[in-house]
This record gives sequence, structure tokens and C-alpha cells, in this order.
Amino acid sequence: MSEQTIPYKIYLKESEMPRHWYNVRADMKNKPAPLLNPKSLQPMTEEELSAVFCKELVKQELNDTDRLIDIPQEIRDFYKMYRPSPLVRAYCLEKQLDTPARIYYKFEGNNTSGSHKLNSAIAQAYYARNQGLRGVTTETGAGQWGTALSMACAYLGLDCQVYMVKVSYEQKPFRREVMRTYGAAVTPSPSSTTQVGQRILAEHPGTGGSLGCAISEAVEAASSQEGYRYVLGSVLNQVLLHQSVIGLETKAALDQYGIVPDIIIGCAGGGSNLGGLISPFMGEKLRGEKDYRFIAVEPASCPSLTRGKYVYDFCDTGKVCPLAKMYTLGSGFMPSPNHAGGLRYHGMNSTLSQLYHDGYMEAVSVEQSAVFAAATQFAKVEGILPAPESSHAIRVAMDEALKCRETGEAKTIVFGLTGTGYFDMVAYGKYNDGEMCDYIPTDEDLQRGLAGIPKFPGNKTAGL
Amino acid sequence: MSEQTIPYKIYLKESEMPRHWYNVRADMKNKPAPLLNPKSLQPMTEEELSAVFCKELVKQELNDTDRLIDIPQEIRDFYKMYRPSPLVRAYCLEKQLDTPARIYYKFEGNNTSGSHKLNSAIAQAYYARNQGLRGVTTETGAGQWGTALSMACAYLGLDCQVYMVKVSYEQKPFRREVMRTYGAAVTPSPSSTTQVGQRILAEHPGTGGSLGCAISEAVEAASSQEGYRYVLGSVLNQVLLHQSVIGLETKAALDQYGIVPDIIIGCAGGGSNLGGLISPFMGEKLRGEKDYRFIAVEPASCPSLTRGKYVYDFCDTGKVCPLAKMYTLGSGFMPSPNHAGGLRYHGMNSTLSQLYHDGYMEAVSVEQSAVFAAATQFAKVEGILPAPESSHAIRVAMDEALKCRETGEAKTIVFGLTGTGYFDMVAYGKYNDGEMCDYIPTDEDLQRGLAGIPKFPGNKTAGL
Repeated sequence: MSEQTIPYKIYLKESEMPRHWYNVRADMKNKPAPLLNPKSLQPMTEEELSAVFCKELVKQELNDTDRLIDIPQEIRDFYKMYRPSPLVRAYCLEKQLDTPARIYYKFEGNNTSGSHKLNSAIAQAYYARNQGLRGVTTETGAGQWGTALSMACAYLGLDCQVYMVKVSYEQKPFRREVMRTYGAAVTPSPSSTTQVGQRILAEHPGTGGSLGCAISEAVEAASSQEGYRYVLGSVLNQVLLHQSVIGLETKAALDQYGIVPDIIIGCAGGGSNLGGLISPFMGEKLRGEKDYRFIAVEPASCPSLTRGKYVYDFCDTGKVCPLAKMYTLGSGFMPSPNHAGGLRYHGMNSTLSQLYHDGYMEAVSVEQSAVFAAATQFAKVEGILPAPESSHAIRVAMDEALKCRETGEAKTIVFGLTGTGYFDMVAYGKYNDGEMCDYIPTDEDLQRGLAGIPKFPGNKTAGL
Repeated sequence: MSEQTIPYKIYLKESEMPRHWYNVRADMKNKPAPLLNPKSLQPMTEEELSAVFCKELVKQELNDTDRLIDIPQEIRDFYKMYRPSPLVRAYCLEKQLDTPARIYYKFEGNNTSGSHKLNSAIAQAYYARNQGLRGVTTETGAGQWGTALSMACAYLGLDCQVYMVKVSYEQKPFRREVMRTYGAAVTPSPSSTTQVGQRILAEHPGTGGSLGCAISEAVEAASSQEGYRYVLGSVLNQVLLHQSVIGLETKAALDQYGIVPDIIIGCAGGGSNLGGLISPFMGEKLRGEKDYRFIAVEPASCPSLTRGKYVYDFCDTGKVCPLAKMYTLGSGFMPSPNHAGGLRYHGMNSTLSQLYHDGYMEAVSVEQSAVFAAATQFAKVEGILPAPESSHAIRVAMDEALKCRETGEAKTIVFGLTGTGYFDMVAYGKYNDGEMCDYIPTDEDLQRGLAGIPKFPGNKTAGL
């Protein structure tokens, strides 16, 4: 296939879109460790999980044997409203970098949520509706997940209650209005609508809230209302499963042109985008069919893979959720208020953690100002204004392409462009004004966070 | 062709994208009236126009004989970064409206400018660069045009100076930051950087500015700097020419599936989107090959086609630009501060005005609250959060589809979805809070505006 025949954007036909999600756990010899009940320290049962999550989603969460899982027709129809997403050849960026590398990116920003989050939101809302539920509750920080869930619930006629971190609620009124336009009830957290919210407000009057607090409120709201369940936009294995649609489309598009990537790069917060993008490629690597380099990119200010511990930890600050074995900085770790809200999570999805632990994946951390430099350069030549989260992947893709300029190697680089930065202009403004700071936690900062990791027998081997 | 085979989204292949713009004036028996020199009242010559505009663009402005005009390769390459845009079958909207009508929309919002404006911005920047200019100046109100021009200039390495209406500059800091991210210099207007700005500031300290004032500043800035020209995002015939790429792609996509529209609908401010969308279809109608209904939709608060006069008028409030024959409310007409900044222009492009005058096109006006009701309903079922401007077309497309439900007719309706509403959430917030007002100018309001139309001989027939 000659170079000239590869278009700027490869779109699959709708008839070529995936009919199954890909469950990478089925190909893993070392399965990700199970979620544990924080009281009994025994693996969470299907029944225990079903009190909080939808039944079908619990099955997906626990399923580490079936490689392919059907995508229901109604979800596939919804996907057709904004998918297939384009796989873009970054001809203009290549030219500007003067690199022999071939750079592709899978662009997930062409929908109103502005990110890949919609891929899992519609799936979770669908199973909730099918279970006969009235509605779902969730938390949102930066707002992408809350927006995506609002859209999915509006489409399916489901009630949607979003607890939005109060400081975001006040700083990002536009995000809030998008959710309200889609019919969601958006409550600033902490609020007086829940017991945990009342308690926190009494203890910390005037607090701006936190994701941990918003999770606690959303979980309480789900369990205190008949016909409601709690849903989550990342971290869980079910979310990675739904997001595999990204990787499956990417692989199908590359296959059509006989392109084999050398390096696949994604930003990593909870892991939903990275896990989804790499899943089918990782499957080939796990089965020994192909070899690829996978690079997870995380912010230097919240470096769970590169500086965290691989142990069992709480998933939330409120410590109400099950324990997960993952690379973690401790549920009490306080990342700096950087401008990539979607990457400010203390832990990493358990599947990705296991794969990283077993050496199937690399990880690097990058500083914020270098990320925005890459974002701005990318925007000017490729036209798309990227989200700060996505720009972490852009930074490393550019770095790898620049290495190729040195070595003369024509490597093929694929990265995930998870979304757009239209609601992040405060951050871009700081960069434009030369006021962007970097923040790298000291060893002491990390020690404080890691001190909160539970000291139960299974964690002893990690030296804690 | 059976219904089932029509996908949700029709994308042309990049190789099928238009190689020529379509100049509808070539097919008109009654050509649009020429621009007049405001002093001599004689048609503007190529030389006169070239003092303000780029040479090649002046040629395009004056060309009413060549039907096809080549799109240069470099512009076609740029188009490939965000085009072809999808022609979407609104299956979900049809289902919700329970209509036998078939509804399609051409979606131009999948680029960072958030609208169709980029189609002309890249063309105008290209000709400026090729003429050896250093940069261009322009004004922007809502911000889409300024963003689009910033993107085009960043790509071509051209300096970009944007005069942004001060009240928008302060109320829409995010729009401003997007332009700055693309390297544009954004100045709130009126400013002290121009003589006209200084004069206005002295006369009206504390004014929030106006589009008319920003135009005057941008024109002065262009003429006072060596190697600069002024560019404009709508109203001119050259802009309609560039925007014909919308209609050409739409027609090619429909032709591939043998679809013939009955009604084509677009929102109309200065006319760039509507004119671009309908051009090739209008050509068929003018040549007597096909018949279509064309509907221009304008806000009830700024009803140039439905309540204006067809006369020669000033294009700008400052009265420095040539006179154009058009449907106008008078250059001194003050539309209410509605939430569709892109439709708050007192006149209409001269080509569309002539076509409307000759009975080839219909026009309707709609009220703001009905527009936002349509926008919200559309967002919930089709997933896309539309710009307030675009939602004018949605309103009328839905009304026509609802008529089909009454009559049982399975008409095919195509409308232009010009852009997204991500930067318009203040307006959506007002609607969500039930605080959206409608405003219909009284006959007295209109009389005040029309009183400013120049009283020269050619206008006497209009009874002025």
C-alpha cells in the first residue's frame, strides 16, 4: 500500500463497526486481582456488588474468561450517532516535526461530551434501563463523565443525578448547563441532600468538595432511592470493556491499509481510555502473535504507575467502595490542582496495573507546561484543540517522533486523542499568559499518601 | 435504494471531495446588483476594492459568469483535516416526532471553530498569503469567525489581528483564549489602538462596543499597516462561493444514495451558510432542471428578509464600506441582544437577496424561545448540542416534519447544522431557568432603522 493512498482520516463504514467488545482479561495468564470486601477481605460476590451496581454490569466486571462480549443492538445504534470515530493521519504534524515517523491518532472528541466517556455511559445506562431501574447516580469532577451520562440517560429516558465537585460546579458553569440541558439534576457536592454531605458540611463549612466526597454522596443517593444504582466512568474493568470499541475500530482501520503500529500511546488517569485503546493489540501481544510497545502517560503531579505501589487500596477517599489491587498513591494522596482533572486519580485500573506489573506496558510521566506546549503546537497544525488530558499522549507521541528524526527510523506511532479542550480555556489562558506551574510531589508527599494504604496481610509483600 | 441501506452518517471519500467551488451567480438571469462606491455611487472597480481586500478575492467577488472556480490544492489539503463533514440522517429525531418525513442535516460543527466559518477563513488566508501579505485584520462578535480565521492564519503562518466586540471579549473569555492559543492578537473594541476607536472611546467612555465599531477599527488597522488586508466572514459573495463546498458535498452524498430533497432549510444572518448549502441545488432550479423549496430562517428579532426593504444600504454601522443592494433593516437598526450573535446582522447577502426578490426562495422568522425548545429536543435525541444560530434551521425543519405527520407525506427535508453551542451555555442556562425572552421589533422600531437608509435615486422605487 503506497503512502499516497492513506487518507487524512480513515472512517470505517457503519457496517464495519464492532459487534462485540473485547475483554482483554480473557487473554491474561495472570488475571487482575479480584475486588475485596473491605470488611471481610474476601472477594466481592456477584450479590454484594449487585447492591450498588446493575446486575449485567456486575457480570461484566467479574468476567475474566470470555474474550468477546456482544454489544446489544440498541447500543450499536447509539454508537452510530457519533461513531465510528476517525483514525487520523497526522500529516501536518509529521511535516512540522520533520520526522520520518508516521503518526496516527484516534480522535474521540467529536461528540457533545467532548470525550470517549460516552462509549461507556450509554452501555451503563442501557443495562440500568433494561433492569427496570428509574435512574442512576454518579459523581463528576471536570464534567466529561457527567455530560456523557446525561446524554445517555436523556436518550434512554432514565433519570440522571450528578454530584459535581462544588469547586468545579462554580468554576465550570458551562459544563453544568450542558448536563442540565440534557435533563440531568446537577447538585454541587458536598450538599445537604445526603447524610454524608450534611456531615461534611458541618465539619468543613465552606469546603469546595472533592471527588471522594462526591462519590460518597452519589453512592448514598443510589442506595437510599428505590430503583437507582450508582455508575462510574473509569477505573472499573467493565468500563475498559466498553472502551475497547476505541481499540477495535483503530485496529480495523489500520488493518484495512495494512498498517502495523510500533508504538501505541495513551494518557492514563483511571485507565479507561488507555485500556480501551490498547485492548485488542495487547491481546495479540499476550497471545504471542505480535509485539507492540505500549506507553501509558501520566501527569508528573499524579504518578500512580511510575511512583506508586502495587497493592490493595481503597478506590475512594470515603473508603466505602471495595478494595482493588492496583498501582496507587494512596486514597488520601492529594494531587496538585493541575489542569487535567481527568488524570487526577490516585490509583490505576486493576487490569492495566497487572499488565504493567508483568512488563507488558511502559509508563512515563510528563510535566504540565511541556504538555501544554505540545497541545498548542498540535492545535496550530492539526486544527483540533485538544483536552489537557489527551495532550499528555500528544507530548509523548511528539517526543517519540522526534527520536525518530534523530535515528532516521520510520516508526509507526498511534495515540489516543481522547477529547477536546473547549471547556478548559482557563488552563490554556494560564499557559498563554506564561503562568503555568509544574508540580512534582516530593518523596515526603508520596509517603504521606502511601501511609493511608490499608495494612492487611496481602499488602505486606509490598513492604507496607 | 431501500431505506435500510442509508447509514446514519454519509461521509464522502476524500477523493470525492469537491475540486471546484460553485458560483451560483453564473446561473442567475438577474445578477445581484453591484457594490457601489458610497461617494460616486458608481460600481466599485477591481482597483478600488483591492485597496481593502486581497486581489484574488476581489476577482471572486466580481465574478458572476464562471460557474466553477478551482479550489487550490493547498486549501483542499486543509479541508481534508476536518472535511468531508457528515450528512446525517436524523433517524432518532424522525422517530421522536413520529413523522413520515425523512430528515437529513449537514453537520459543520466538527472543527475547533465550531462552525462552517473555517471553509472561507482558510480560503481568504490562503489568497492573502499568496499575495505576499504579512497579515489580515477582522472583527468578531460571537467569536466563531475570529476563531476560524485564527486557525487558518496559524496554519499558513500569517499574522492575525482580531477586533472583538468588547462586551463579547469580556463575556466570552474562552472564545478569546481559543484565538490566542492559535496565535491571534485579540483586541477588545473600541480600543485605543486606532483613531476611530479613540474617537468612540472619547465620545462614549465605558461603551461595550458593537460589530459596526469593530469593523471600522479592523478596516483602519488593515489600511494603516503595510502588508495587511481586511477580511470578512459573511455577507460578501466570495464567502458564499467558498461556502458552496457545504452544498456540493451535500449534493454528492445525496446523489450516491439517489435521494432528492423536497425542502432545503438554512439559518440566515449574513447568508454565508444558507447560500453555501443551497448553491448547487439553486443552480439546478435556476436552470430549470429540478425544483426544490428553499427556506431561509431568520430570528424574529432581526427579520431582514421578512420585514426589511430591498434597497441599497451601508454594510456597516460606520458607513465606511461600499453600498450593497440587499434586504436590509437599515445599518442603524439595533437588534435586541438575542442569543444568536451570528444572526444579528441588519442586511442579507446580495445574491440571496436577489434570489428571494425573484421568488426562488422563501423566508420565515422564528422566536427565540421556540428555537431553544427545538435545540434542546434535538440535543436529547441526536446527541449534538447545536449553536443557537443553527437551531433556527432545526426549528423549521421540525415544523415541516410535523406538518408531514398531519398530511402523511414522506417529504425529504435537508437542513444545515452550522455548528455547536459549547460557547453558548449562558443562553442555554437562561432557557433552562425559564428566563428566555422573545423580542419582536415593532413597526416603529423598524421605521427608525429604515430611516437610516441612504436616499439616493436608486432607492426611490422602494418608496423611501
